[in-house]
Amino acid sequence: MRRTFLFMRFAFVFAFGFASAAFAQTPPAPEVHADNRVTFRFRAPNAKEVALALEGAAKDLAMQKDEQGVWSVTTEPLAPDFYGYAFVADGVHLIDPSTPLMKPNLLNTTSQVHVPGPASLTWEVSDVPHGEVHHHFYKSAVVGDQRDFYVYTPPGYDRRGKQSYPVLYLLHGFSDDASGWTAVGRAYVILDNLTAQGKTKPMIVVMPLGYGAPEILRGGFGAFRNTELRDRNFAKFSEALLGEVLPRVESAYLVNKDRNSRAIAGLSMGGSESLLTGLNNVDKFAWIGAFSSGGLPEEFDKDFPGLNAKANDEVKLLWIACGVDDRLIEFNRKVRAWLEAKGVHKVDIETPGAHTWMVWRRNLSAFTPLLFR
Amino acid sequence: MRRTFLFMRFAFVFAFGFASAAFAQTPPAPEVHADNRVTFRFRAPNAKEVALALEGAAKDLAMQKDEQGVWSVTTEPLAPDFYGYAFVADGVHLIDPSTPLMKPNLLNTTSQVHVPGPASLTWEVSDVPHGEVHHHFYKSAVVGDQRDFYVYTPPGYDRRGKQSYPVLYLLHGFSDDASGWTAVGRAYVILDNLTAQGKTKPMIVVMPLGYGAPEILRGGFGAFRNTELRDRNFAKFSEALLGEVLPRVESAYLVNKDRNSRAIAGLSMGGSESLLTGLNNVDKFAWIGAFSSGGLPEEFDKDFPGLNAKANDEVKLLWIACGVDDRLIEFNRKVRAWLEAKGVHKVDIETPGAHTWMVWRRNLSAFTPLLFR
Repeated sequence: MRRTFLFMRFAFVFAFGFASAAFAQTPPAPEVHADNRVTFRFRAPNAKEVALALEGAAKDLAMQKDEQGVWSVTTEPLAPDFYGYAFVADGVHLIDPSTPLMKPNLLNTTSQVHVPGPASLTWEVSDVPHGEVHHHFYKSAVVGDQRDFYVYTPPGYDRRGKQSYPVLYLLHGFSDDASGWTAVGRAYVILDNLTAQGKTKPMIVVMPLGYGAPEILRGGFGAFRNTELRDRNFAKFSEALLGEVLPRVESAYLVNKDRNSRAIAGLSMGGSESLLTGLNNVDKFAWIGAFSSGGLPEEFDKDFPGLNAKANDEVKLLWIACGVDDRLIEFNRKVRAWLEAKGVHKVDIETPGAHTWMVWRRNLSAFTPLLFR
Repeated sequence: MRRTFLFMRFAFVFAFGFASAAFAQTPPAPEVHADNRVTFRFRAPNAKEVALALEGAAKDLAMQKDEQGVWSVTTEPLAPDFYGYAFVADGVHLIDPSTPLMKPNLLNTTSQVHVPGPASLTWEVSDVPHGEVHHHFYKSAVVGDQRDFYVYTPPGYDRRGKQSYPVLYLLHGFSDDASGWTAVGRAYVILDNLTAQGKTKPMIVVMPLGYGAPEILRGGFGAFRNTELRDRNFAKFSEALLGEVLPRVESAYLVNKDRNSRAIAGLSMGGSESLLTGLNNVDKFAWIGAFSSGGLPEEFDKDFPGLNAKANDEVKLLWIACGVDDRLIEFNRKVRAWLEAKGVHKVDIETPGAHTWMVWRRNLSAFTPLLFR
């Protein structure tokens, strides 16, 4: 039985690029069937109830226990993608110990399963030239901590060369860390593929840590109700981005330094950071994207003082997207209505989906081809 | 109660740089007391037995359940360091869901806890100039997969500059991935600190994926008994390192390309890879380190054909270290005795400790100051 488990487990490890793993007493990592149904297994011999929490699923899926104490459930066929998931055992969210494919998060790290799809899916690794991801570390004077940011350089980027590039500042959501857009968002894979296809212009992508007041994490998802803390988090984030990260990037990389060569976009909290930092600094950013943004109060006159139709002369793209099953869809409709009333041009995008990375990987894939045209 | 948990949890999140996290129903991340005892907590209301598996501990520590179903144990004071750990609940190894600080591994990802120490400890982040870590991706013709490697560049490294650097190729152990020496080994922190102190020469550190035959992972730790697979894993690793990684590094970075400017070192399987690749290619590497090496059969005449005292003219350092509580200590003594009989000069290091990253972080801190002198 043990031998069978090992064999089964490794039958799909290599297909997924180490998406699976073995461990004594650990049932095989999620098994993706030919029809894209996925079987999840978790050993918990004495648990009374175990369910699967799957990214994008409306509710947890009950699991059934076998005589060896292994709980399992097989989903309906899943669209090819990466799905975050956790096991909920007697009310406790647990990471799957059978896979090394993590979904890092500062408040609830979970696991990921890859349902492989065709090379036409932008997040699938394919045999095209690859860019690089650079991890930077610095002490922030604005926030007062040691922090990091990531920089993607496109295939063929040559630090000694003559070509310089436009820059997209790409922001994660609340509870993510700076690795979110690479480890989960697969931005480097998406950009490699779209660049190889000629769909996006070669660009540098900067992925900073998105907290101006990291203590906001203490309060969990309710912390945004604390007005002072929320405002400080947004303000100090902008200050660190513009005063610390941007100058470091523009000094270390071959980048174009005009506003038409700078974009800012992000998801959820990072979407609001993109709107705040972008629309309040149109002298610095001509391209702005907000994916499923939230965390702002609905006090737009206060957040965007003086914003009006004159911004249309400077902002080349204001792209506001949200999934229709996202609890933030109403907020996004209000933002758009307010901008509409101000006469500010924007692109309104409503997609299928909820507050998930499946939506954001598609947002990034749709947004980046529009940039720097 | 919930509020108390949240507060306690975040009282030490920021001291440790996000070493902790919150999640509904999840007890606080490991609590490090002023005297360096550590309390671990894990909620599993229906488990019959839960223990703590702690890196470096001779045996698992039993945990006790309280009336809320939370199991806990408090250790003796721990020396400041990073410790891998897992909860063993009714025989199943589980990752701690309350911390985002993972110990990535392809066969058994676990958690890490940071027991902070003084800045004199090389792995503690301090306010010194930081290098960068670059993540590269390529398709290997030798192995036939998409794979990655990491490159650390020292503080002040300037791709457009005139200064070029020596290179250390630093190899992980069996079941690690290419991120092992950064995510767990903290090589970039160690090198930042030792460089700032003037103890190591500024150097580039290359951390490749250590598998020439990744299917060796299928067999778990017993796979090394398969002679053909083991030999192929070692041989293809060397071929990919010398034929694919090294040329990419020497093309993309400002490096010195003479043998006196190349070192190779690694831990466990990577220690054996360093001995095999280094001693069989003394025209390419003048500095060789093996930390707790293993996985080789004791057929040294076959593995190192023709090696003799003439190597002393070329090898400037052959540094062979192992912890005295490591099950591989006898193997390392045999390697050293065989080299002794061949008249090959070497440095014999026996340290306290077992087969742990605590040993290897110290090995790296002791080894790198000796290089490129």
